[in-house]
Amino acid sequence: MFTASKLVTMLEWEPMSTHAEVASICNDGQEVHCVKGAVFTFNRVDADGSITKGGYSNYIVVHERYCYRIPDNYPLASAAPLLCAGITVYTPMVHHKMNQPGKSLGVIGLGGLGHMAVKFGKAFGLNVTIFSTSLSKKEEALSVLGANRFVVSSDEEQMKALAKSFDFIIDTASGDHPFDPYMSLLKTAGVLVLVGFPSEVKFSPASLNIGMKTISGSLVGGTKVTQEMIDFCAAQKIYPNIEVIPIQYANEALERLINRDVKYRFVIDIENSLK
Amino acid sequence: MFTASKLVTMLEWEPMSTHAEVASICNDGQEVHCVKGAVFTFNRVDADGSITKGGYSNYIVVHERYCYRIPDNYPLASAAPLLCAGITVYTPMVHHKMNQPGKSLGVIGLGGLGHMAVKFGKAFGLNVTIFSTSLSKKEEALSVLGANRFVVSSDEEQMKALAKSFDFIIDTASGDHPFDPYMSLLKTAGVLVLVGFPSEVKFSPASLNIGMKTISGSLVGGTKVTQEMIDFCAAQKIYPNIEVIPIQYANEALERLINRDVKYRFVIDIENSLK
Repeated sequence: MFTASKLVTMLEWEPMSTHAEVASICNDGQEVHCVKGAVFTFNRVDADGSITKGGYSNYIVVHERYCYRIPDNYPLASAAPLLCAGITVYTPMVHHKMNQPGKSLGVIGLGGLGHMAVKFGKAFGLNVTIFSTSLSKKEEALSVLGANRFVVSSDEEQMKALAKSFDFIIDTASGDHPFDPYMSLLKTAGVLVLVGFPSEVKFSPASLNIGMKTISGSLVGGTKVTQEMIDFCAAQKIYPNIEVIPIQYANEALERLINRDVKYRFVIDIENSLK
Repeated sequence: MFTASKLVTMLEWEPMSTHAEVASICNDGQEVHCVKGAVFTFNRVDADGSITKGGYSNYIVVHERYCYRIPDNYPLASAAPLLCAGITVYTPMVHHKMNQPGKSLGVIGLGGLGHMAVKFGKAFGLNVTIFSTSLSKKEEALSVLGANRFVVSSDEEQMKALAKSFDFIIDTASGDHPFDPYMSLLKTAGVLVLVGFPSEVKFSPASLNIGMKTISGSLVGGTKVTQEMIDFCAAQKIYPNIEVIPIQYANEALERLINRDVKYRFVIDIENSLK
């Protein structure tokens, strides 16, 4: 047993533990995909029948299997968003072998997930293009996050010019959006990974068949790849852009989140909030 | 140069040659995915500006690059459907590593493509389940084609019982059909390959994200994998089920095709038809 970090990310969910029964997929460190279902952190039924209450508390008891070692030189506040936004994009990037320097990556949506995809993409040596609905994010995307290119997705001409030019696309947008225009940006055998939850995914079969393209889904990540990502971030000095807040600020933060007024994650400092 | 086979498959199209310019994807034997577009066999513009006229003739001049060696012991009539129905399912099966004995394969639709997927699946040592809308195909599917299981896709109970049990699914159905029910049959990280052309592909993001599943498309195949498949069929004694007809029977054959009255491909014997 272990006393967990007192800093947690806000307004996201993460797998805390999985069903007690052993399954090979769990033993392979992919607990979140347990065939018997995962136990989630907030307001869900745990293996013992109790209701999970999340991590917004001074102390929390967690099985050691679900604890991570945060390297000494890595700020705890920065580690918090890694465990949701970070791992959500890191998992498919590694799974689909996006860590090949020189390949091209498109990132749809520049929020908490998208900005981490850009950071990982740059660390992997990829040529990174951000697709966003909002031109206002351009300067920061290029200068602060270091993306190679910024495209406003409604700009049909620019989209057309980029046809068949991407090895990979990560789609972090949760709002509804068309898929065919992005599929047309992929090279032959290119891969689009969906990590958001729009209301539906809809496209023409030709978008998939011609050029033997792939759409894959992904969901956070297991314990094995999570620890690997944390160590990678510490070694590469990759830090999420965060705004640390006391828990008393939660309602205002929620309002700002709805208005997309956060770059790019709020982190609640539980320890100092509950003194 | 080479005189091509006088037996051709009916009512399908195949890549005959690609754009003259060299591209790496072409040099890798994947000419059908040439970034400059492929030249198709019937009524399309060839690289020299002429109109392609297909292979329904006594003789046809083809660049040697697009000719295949049919092993001496392999009947030409059987080879014909390999070059469309066969390669259309063989390509994604090899590309997605379905040739792992003991894995489970679902085949949606039992027509020309589906019956070849079953044959390849059995040759690869897979446990093969056919999903069909028509119970009338059951006996033949099990006894003649050797499938392990036959499921009528409208049988919700049976579909439910098979949840999370497939490593791979090949979807050969060109009619519109829902995708979510089939996605739910895939194991974690399972792959559904689409080779048909329904009017659209539509599913819930959860069907993809939960269990990090994949939908991939595929389209016939390049010269390299086509020759590999032909040799594999000869070595494994895999033959499409065909009905050889003279070209004079073409209109009646088309009617029967529309009425789904063919098991599973018509092959026109051009040589004997045009004597």
